[in-house]
Amino acid sequence: MRGSTLDVFQMIAGGVTTPKGFRAAGVSAGIKATGLDLALLVSDREATASAVFTTNRAQAAPVLISREHLARSGGIARAVIVNSGCANACTGDAGLQVARDMAAGTARLIGCRADQILVASTGVIGVALDAGKIGRALPGAIAALAGDQGASAARAIMTTDPFPKEAAARVSIGERDATDIYIGGMAKGSGMIEPNMATMLGFIATDASVPKPLLDRALAEAVNDTFNAITVDGECSTNDCVMLLANGASGASVDPSNYDAFAYALRTVCLRLALGIVRGGEGATKLVTVTVTGAASPIEARRAAKAIANSPLVKTAIHGGDPNWGRLIAVAGRAAVEFNLSRAAVTIGTVVLFKDGRPHDEAAPEAANYLKNDDITVSVDLGAGAASSTVWTCDLSAEYVRINAEYRT
Amino acid sequence: MRGSTLDVFQMIAGGVTTPKGFRAAGVSAGIKATGLDLALLVSDREATASAVFTTNRAQAAPVLISREHLARSGGIARAVIVNSGCANACTGDAGLQVARDMAAGTARLIGCRADQILVASTGVIGVALDAGKIGRALPGAIAALAGDQGASAARAIMTTDPFPKEAAARVSIGERDATDIYIGGMAKGSGMIEPNMATMLGFIATDASVPKPLLDRALAEAVNDTFNAITVDGECSTNDCVMLLANGASGASVDPSNYDAFAYALRTVCLRLALGIVRGGEGATKLVTVTVTGAASPIEARRAAKAIANSPLVKTAIHGGDPNWGRLIAVAGRAAVEFNLSRAAVTIGTVVLFKDGRPHDEAAPEAANYLKNDDITVSVDLGAGAASSTVWTCDLSAEYVRINAEYRT
Repeated sequence: MRGSTLDVFQMIAGGVTTPKGFRAAGVSAGIKATGLDLALLVSDREATASAVFTTNRAQAAPVLISREHLARSGGIARAVIVNSGCANACTGDAGLQVARDMAAGTARLIGCRADQILVASTGVIGVALDAGKIGRALPGAIAALAGDQGASAARAIMTTDPFPKEAAARVSIGERDATDIYIGGMAKGSGMIEPNMATMLGFIATDASVPKPLLDRALAEAVNDTFNAITVDGECSTNDCVMLLANGASGASVDPSNYDAFAYALRTVCLRLALGIVRGGEGATKLVTVTVTGAASPIEARRAAKAIANSPLVKTAIHGGDPNWGRLIAVAGRAAVEFNLSRAAVTIGTVVLFKDGRPHDEAAPEAANYLKNDDITVSVDLGAGAASSTVWTCDLSAEYVRINAEYRT
Repeated sequence: MRGSTLDVFQMIAGGVTTPKGFRAAGVSAGIKATGLDLALLVSDREATASAVFTTNRAQAAPVLISREHLARSGGIARAVIVNSGCANACTGDAGLQVARDMAAGTARLIGCRADQILVASTGVIGVALDAGKIGRALPGAIAALAGDQGASAARAIMTTDPFPKEAAARVSIGERDATDIYIGGMAKGSGMIEPNMATMLGFIATDASVPKPLLDRALAEAVNDTFNAITVDGECSTNDCVMLLANGASGASVDPSNYDAFAYALRTVCLRLALGIVRGGEGATKLVTVTVTGAASPIEARRAAKAIANSPLVKTAIHGGDPNWGRLIAVAGRAAVEFNLSRAAVTIGTVVLFKDGRPHDEAAPEAANYLKNDDITVSVDLGAGAASSTVWTCDLSAEYVRINAEYRT
C-alpha cells in the first residue's frame, strides 16, 4: 500500500466540510467585541470520534466535558461546538455548567444525545463564558449550517490568528474497488503554542468509516509528528485539543489493509494545519524548520530540536537575519542530551557554518543572505548518534511582545 | 552563631577589591570596538580558590582551562584574567591555546605558576580571540592594578549590561576575638541568563582564610540560592562561571564555628550581584520575584518557579502591566509538577486574584496598579504540598528582541 500511496493521494482546496456528510457554520454570538466567534461542525450521521487533549494540569471546562462525553458515548459524536473570545478555563463549577449547557443546547437542536456533542473554547483564561449569548446564537448557527461554510467556521475559531487555517486531502482507499475518501480540517493558533491566549484547536473530519481503535491510533500518530512538533512560544495551554470525526458517508472503510494511505493523508492534513499555525504565530514573520540529526535517541533528538525551536536567542537571531550558529551550539549544549562538540555541525539552509569543532565563518554572508527568505531551515548535528527529529517554529519579533503585553489591557 | 549573624553583618559600598590584599584593573585591549574589555583581579598572596562552571556541554575554552588549572594547582590561585567582547567558545584547539596564553602571560608578569591563573571570557560565540591584543594590553593592565580599581574591572567585563554590578559586605567572625573580614564581588549579565550573548560571570574575593572544602561548600550553597535562581531568558551559556578567591589577608579564618556568618554574608553578596544581573537583563524594565508555595517537593517548587519565570506570556503580561493570573495558572499546570487547581492560588503583590478554584477579578484594578512598580512579586500556590522556592526574573520587552536580533549584524 505504502508504495502506491502517493499515486492516489492529493491535497485539494477545502476544509472541514469537504468530506461528505459534514456541514458547518460560523456566526457571531457577541462573545468577542466584533466578528465571528461561534462555530458548529455537524455530521449528518453518527461519527466515530477521537480526540487528543492538552497535558496541562489546569484543564479547561470544555476539555473536561469533551473527555466525559467521549467516554460516555463510547466514542460517538454528532457535532462539535466551539467558541472563541473566552477560554472557559479556571472558571470552576460554573464554567463546567456552561460547557454542559453548550452541549445540551446543541444536542436539543440537532436531535441527539448531549454526550454526542464535543465542546471547545479559546480565548482569555479565567473569564466567565456567557451561556446566554451562546444559547441565543445557537438557532442561527443551526440555520446557517451548510456544506460550503467550512471557511466561516475556520474564521469563527480565530483569536489573534492573522488568517484562518484549513486543509483538505482526497485519498483513494481499497485495493480493488478503490473509493475516494476525503479528509478536511481547520485549526487555530496562535499564542500559547507548544500546544495561552489559550490555545491550539484542531478539528478534522473524514467521510471514511474508521473503527475506533484505528481512528485513535491514526490521530495519535499524526498529532505526534505535526501538532505536537510545533512551537510558537513553548507554552502549553489549558484548552488545546485536536478532534477527529469519521462518519463513513463515503461508503468506504479504513481497515489494516489500507490504513497506511489513510494515515498518510491524515498526517499531511494535520501538518498543513500545524504549519499554518506556526506561520500565523503571534508576531511571526518566518516559518523555521528545525532538524536535529546525530542524536543518541529519538527522544533526545526531539528534546534538542524543541530546545532550539523555543530558544529566544535563536528566534531573535533568525528574526534579525543573523547566522548566529554559536547560539544554536549553545542551546544544543544545554539541552540535556548527549552532545559531542568536536563532531557537531550547524547548517543554515544548505550552508555549513560549523563542522567537526571548527567555525566556517567565511560562509556567513551566504547564510545571512539565505536568512532573508520567509521559510528557513536550520539543522544541528549533535555528533552523538543516528537519531533525528524535525520540529517547526517561528521567529520572535517585537510584535510578539506587543501582542502579549497588550492582550487584555 | 546564627543568632548573632545579623548583628555583625553589614552590606557596604565596594566591590571585588574591598577585601584586603586584592587589586584590580580594567583596561582597553581593543577586543570590543570601544571601551574597557580586559579585567585583572590579583591577590597579593596565594588564595584558596573555588569555582562553579556552566553545565552547558559546549564548554568554552576559558572554562576548560580554568577547570584544568584549579585541578593542577590544588585549588590555589593568584589572579583572574577576564576579557569581554569575545567568548572564546566553539573555537577549537586554537581557542584553548589562546586561553592558555592568557594565563601564561599573566603568570609571567606577576611571577607565579600559570596554573595559579584563572581565565574567563564573555562575548560573541565562535569568533577567534586575538591573543596578540591581550598580550599587548597585559603590561598596562598590570601597571594599572590598584586597590581602588574594582569598579574599572566591573566595567571591563560588561557586554550588553546597562550598568556594572558590584557588591561588598563586612562581617565579623570569631566568637571572642572577633575580626572583621570583607567579601566583595563583581558580576556581569545580561543575555543567555539562566545562567548567551555568552554569559554570566561572577568574581568574588574575600580576605578571610577559608579551607578549600568549606570554601567549595559555601560557594555551591550560595550559588544555588542566588545565581542559579535567576533567569533572564532561560538560556545557559557556554561560558558561565562564578569564581571565589579567599586570600586570608584579614588574618581571620573561617572554620565550622563561624561558617554560618561567612556563608550568610557570601550569599548576600551573591544575591546582590545576581539581582543586579536580572535588573540589568536585556531589555528589562522590571525585577520580578517569583515565589512558588504549596509544592510537593523543593525540586518541584523550583521547577514551577523557573517555568513561570521563563514564560514569555507571563513576562510580556508583566511588561504590559496586565494582572493576567490565568497565564500563571496555565504555566503552573504545564510545569510537570503536582498541581491542584481547586486548591491553587495566585497573588500579585499582596492582591489575591485566584484562590480555591475561583477568580477574584474584582481585585484586578488594584493588581494592575501594583504592576506599575519596578519591583514586582508574583506568588503561585500549587495546592499540592508544603515546599516553596523563590527565583528572580525580569519582564520581556520589545527591546530584548531588538538587542538580540541586531547583536552581530
